[in-house]
Amino acid sequence: MADPPPTSRFDPARRFPTDLPPTGALMPGDPVGSRRFMTVTDGRPFALEAGGRLDEITVAYETWGHLDIDASNAVLVCHALTGDSHASGGIAPGHPSVGWWNDLIGPGRAIDTDRYFVVCSNVLGGCQGTTGPASINPATGRPFGSDFPQVTIRDMVRAQQLLASRLGIDRWLSVVGGSMGGMQVLEWGAMYPRRVKSLVPLATTAAASATQIAWSAVERLSIVTDPNFNDGDYYDAGPGGGPWKGLMIGREIAQITYRSAEVFDERFGRAHHDYRAEFHPWGRFEIESYLDHHGQKLVRRFDANSYLVVSKSMDLHDLGRGRGGVRAALGRLRMPVLTASISSDVLYPPCQQADIHDGITAGGGDCRYEVIDSPQGHDGFLLESGRLGPPIREILERAEKDDV
Amino acid sequence: MADPPPTSRFDPARRFPTDLPPTGALMPGDPVGSRRFMTVTDGRPFALEAGGRLDEITVAYETWGHLDIDASNAVLVCHALTGDSHASGGIAPGHPSVGWWNDLIGPGRAIDTDRYFVVCSNVLGGCQGTTGPASINPATGRPFGSDFPQVTIRDMVRAQQLLASRLGIDRWLSVVGGSMGGMQVLEWGAMYPRRVKSLVPLATTAAASATQIAWSAVERLSIVTDPNFNDGDYYDAGPGGGPWKGLMIGREIAQITYRSAEVFDERFGRAHHDYRAEFHPWGRFEIESYLDHHGQKLVRRFDANSYLVVSKSMDLHDLGRGRGGVRAALGRLRMPVLTASISSDVLYPPCQQADIHDGITAGGGDCRYEVIDSPQGHDGFLLESGRLGPPIREILERAEKDDV
Repeated sequence: MADPPPTSRFDPARRFPTDLPPTGALMPGDPVGSRRFMTVTDGRPFALEAGGRLDEITVAYETWGHLDIDASNAVLVCHALTGDSHASGGIAPGHPSVGWWNDLIGPGRAIDTDRYFVVCSNVLGGCQGTTGPASINPATGRPFGSDFPQVTIRDMVRAQQLLASRLGIDRWLSVVGGSMGGMQVLEWGAMYPRRVKSLVPLATTAAASATQIAWSAVERLSIVTDPNFNDGDYYDAGPGGGPWKGLMIGREIAQITYRSAEVFDERFGRAHHDYRAEFHPWGRFEIESYLDHHGQKLVRRFDANSYLVVSKSMDLHDLGRGRGGVRAALGRLRMPVLTASISSDVLYPPCQQADIHDGITAGGGDCRYEVIDSPQGHDGFLLESGRLGPPIREILERAEKDDV
Repeated sequence: MADPPPTSRFDPARRFPTDLPPTGALMPGDPVGSRRFMTVTDGRPFALEAGGRLDEITVAYETWGHLDIDASNAVLVCHALTGDSHASGGIAPGHPSVGWWNDLIGPGRAIDTDRYFVVCSNVLGGCQGTTGPASINPATGRPFGSDFPQVTIRDMVRAQQLLASRLGIDRWLSVVGGSMGGMQVLEWGAMYPRRVKSLVPLATTAAASATQIAWSAVERLSIVTDPNFNDGDYYDAGPGGGPWKGLMIGREIAQITYRSAEVFDERFGRAHHDYRAEFHPWGRFEIESYLDHHGQKLVRRFDANSYLVVSKSMDLHDLGRGRGGVRAALGRLRMPVLTASISSDVLYPPCQQADIHDGITAGGGDCRYEVIDSPQGHDGFLLESGRLGPPIREILERAEKDDV
């Protein structure tokens, strides 16, 4: 029996389930899983690089392993745009997915939690426990929404540093991260050179390029033009009431840039998903179903306002701002650095990591550069952990020995 | 004096002017410029590959040069997704832009209008004079809107063939086009092998890839989720009433895929457009202003429903459908073919044109393959006409001499 023909050109029910929450942010009453929380501001307002301020900041974080007696074995892991503190560990209430770097962080793994004390915190402006747009604005008693100030990567790093100091960590053995996580890694090196013994910025850039800004910008446009965005005030809307269509489309755009034509061709080719409707305007190919799946998945765990704030912070990322330019900033880094490219990464192309390497070594610094030959695209920094592991293990061991 | 600070996170007036028309389609009463019109159906309904039918089809077309006495000097030029019949010629009422291949088509140019009779018609499903979603549905007396049936590249080519026969052109000296135009070129070779003496498919593919489908799909999603889309019935809406936000965002996505990181970095880098608002969430970088400009420009000259229909026809493009696969279809082509790649094209990557070449020659056919080394990306097929000209001139001259 064939399905009845769709009655309109666009059949929304097939694409957009109606039960999606108004926000995927961690909200009061949700299970917190293995997160812990630290108020890092201690009553003093936190002034932001862009000019605003936050009266109070809570940081959600997770840790693995044990801090040794002289606090010398701590590794900070920094997450990417839609990541959170759950870098390692299984699915559990509060953690709908396995840790995003689970293969890399754990007992006996490259970032060995039998040996190191590993910390990962949700970024400032995020939506998984750290103060962000879904948090309650003390001035109004309601979620910040669009009143949340614009933050930068430097603000995120400063919040991490406040957390580190409260955890008793004076110096990280290493700060490690990919993509936006790598932006934080580089800023750690520039802002707190004496508080990091080594840096591992992966699949990242010293300054967002025009093309990277372009992608972020259209993703954000798709969110704010969703009529349910309501200028950022949607937290009280019922199921289906938030700007999740816009966020879903934004994620679908991003998802294409995260992978490669090679992977998509091999995995999906021209296969039809809605096979009884090959020629129907809204009959989907497999690749479309895949994108819809990823869009819907993000909407259930992320907040549209956080996407706007954090994505813009990436566009604003420029290691050279106020430091005489990118080359000068890179050239001053003196700790050992490991950077790596994924050969098929079209969003953070290998030339950007080569530039990081060249900028550091031109200044007399110490940088190892690895190219991982892989078809996985930008997501390779998550998926190729088996090949990223050995050089990461090496630089950590070297940092342990270095008695700088 | 600084501007007053924007009052909301998203300041729509800066991005979205309010005077945009509900549709950019050519509407009754608009100046037609140098277009001519031909009803090609003669009272017989036109059955579509996807299963629908159209009772009447009008084709809008333009011509340059003179048809010789034995109709042996005719060249068909096929346009891309948002192109139209104005391939050559200046700005005039009805033609807001210079012809899209003006440097290639004209007196003394590679496609020499002193020598050849050149025809370019707006595609079936388009919005610049040929029957499409903005046309009046004879069954209702109102624009088709979403009732317009899905068309395919093969339907477009069959409509062109009806036009050719009414113009007295039994055989084209050559059929030439890039991108979606190149899809039509290949279908001409497969559908009407005795009606074409040579083919010039540029920066195109024999079948849309998963990644190409992915981009088209998110562009279409951005249109249909615009609340002003109204299931395709927006032609009576006043200024600002159509789904132009969705179409604008769709175009911005597409525009990024049409160029290259190299061009964007060199032209825009990290320069700010809204320079008093560098850190403001909606302060734009130059690249964003550029994208907004292109988005707004398209909205004034294109119809959202046409975008949906024509973009989907590209996803459905598969030269091998019903022909035993792409390789078999290519291997049967017997006329001389010239194909070309733009080295930096990320949307129609060079491997796709190499596949066209390989498929033709593997079957014993005659195919020349040129790679234009250029940073312009996919748009290089429009911008590098100076370098595409000589090989095109050559294949036309050869087709003139061939007495097949």
